[in-house]
Amino acid sequence: MIDLRIPKHIGVIPDGNRRWAVENGLTKEKGYEKGLDPGLELFKLCEKAGIEEITYYGFTVDNTKRPRFQRLAFSEACIDAVKMLSKENASLLVVGNTESPMFPIELMPYAIRRQSFGDGGIKVNFLVNYGWQWDLKNYFLDENKKQNPLDLIYSRDISRVDLIIRWGGRRRLSGFLPLQSVYSDFYVINDYWPDFKKEHFYNALEWYDRQDITLGG
Amino acid sequence: MIDLRIPKHIGVIPDGNRRWAVENGLTKEKGYEKGLDPGLELFKLCEKAGIEEITYYGFTVDNTKRPRFQRLAFSEACIDAVKMLSKENASLLVVGNTESPMFPIELMPYAIRRQSFGDGGIKVNFLVNYGWQWDLKNYFLDENKKQNPLDLIYSRDISRVDLIIRWGGRRRLSGFLPLQSVYSDFYVINDYWPDFKKEHFYNALEWYDRQDITLGG
Repeated sequence: MIDLRIPKHIGVIPDGNRRWAVENGLTKEKGYEKGLDPGLELFKLCEKAGIEEITYYGFTVDNTKRPRFQRLAFSEACIDAVKMLSKENASLLVVGNTESPMFPIELMPYAIRRQSFGDGGIKVNFLVNYGWQWDLKNYFLDENKKQNPLDLIYSRDISRVDLIIRWGGRRRLSGFLPLQSVYSDFYVINDYWPDFKKEHFYNALEWYDRQDITLGG
Repeated sequence: MIDLRIPKHIGVIPDGNRRWAVENGLTKEKGYEKGLDPGLELFKLCEKAGIEEITYYGFTVDNTKRPRFQRLAFSEACIDAVKMLSKENASLLVVGNTESPMFPIELMPYAIRRQSFGDGGIKVNFLVNYGWQWDLKNYFLDENKKQNPLDLIYSRDISRVDLIIRWGGRRRLSGFLPLQSVYSDFYVINDYWPDFKKEHFYNALEWYDRQDITLGG
């Protein structure tokens, strides 16, 4: 570990909860709570590795069109995850459309970044009721387009992502922070998120270490 | 082939020209011209497969910071590629910052979509001196925030991309059409672009056929 070039900011797409549930004889919405422990374990591994910022993809505006049972289950899992992370040494921020009824009111206090516990620690961003189109709306209304687009979007407190890790085998961004992801290296793990293993994370870091970083140059 | 679900629009990131040149004992800038034949071959395969739109990643504003020899070589290769495609049955459009001196004047006539030859054929977009930040600086500012961001950007004539194929092994978008790519499936080929084989394309189509398409839902 000590010799690896560590990404500053990793994006986490914890996909495959529903497929995991079905393959384990459960109904789809039962998969989400199984994602809580992996989320905390990954946080601790990032802390240990010296990563400075993590962004978890909670749920999106697109996702809220799913059946009500599923929506309630993934909202609940996000609330629990944020509460769990709020007990860690982290600087926590929930980013998403707080003006919609789909945004869980329990998470309102986290829509402003706060030192949750301890002395600051890792920046942790949690996308909740996030939508890429929502994220860009503010930008398209601004008169001054000379500014960096990254300073004008709703998610402007989230920095450029170095490495995106997606569980569940799909090779796509699914609307995850389009502007912060333009140069991100993208690592896909076939296992479902509830089957998280620390080797997934270490393999991703080893792979990232072998990539050249050009930022489009 | 006949049973595959064919993507409507594929994005092509033809990477690895310089690495190919170096591995073949040439100087880096010699790699670009070797990308011309693959470009035409891929176009013909797309035509045959019934693909409706192709976007080639030519060069970017970021790329123009490279050494002058390389810049001249990749500009020349893009000019040749567009001229070559203009002889095919295609509806051709070059998209990029035409107001910068880095934009090859030879390609100005293609900055407006034209039926190049034949009865229309495939929509072919060629990104030349393209920049994702440039793309987002829309010249008409729209007051109606309900409008789709995709209708406001410079590249608005380019539709959502279904499948992005990248040659050269890197797993990142490198600034390729960030808004059209939010839901794209992303297929990476380890071979360099000058080593293009038709099997690459067929493997990508077979892989795409096995993906579920949710558009973030």
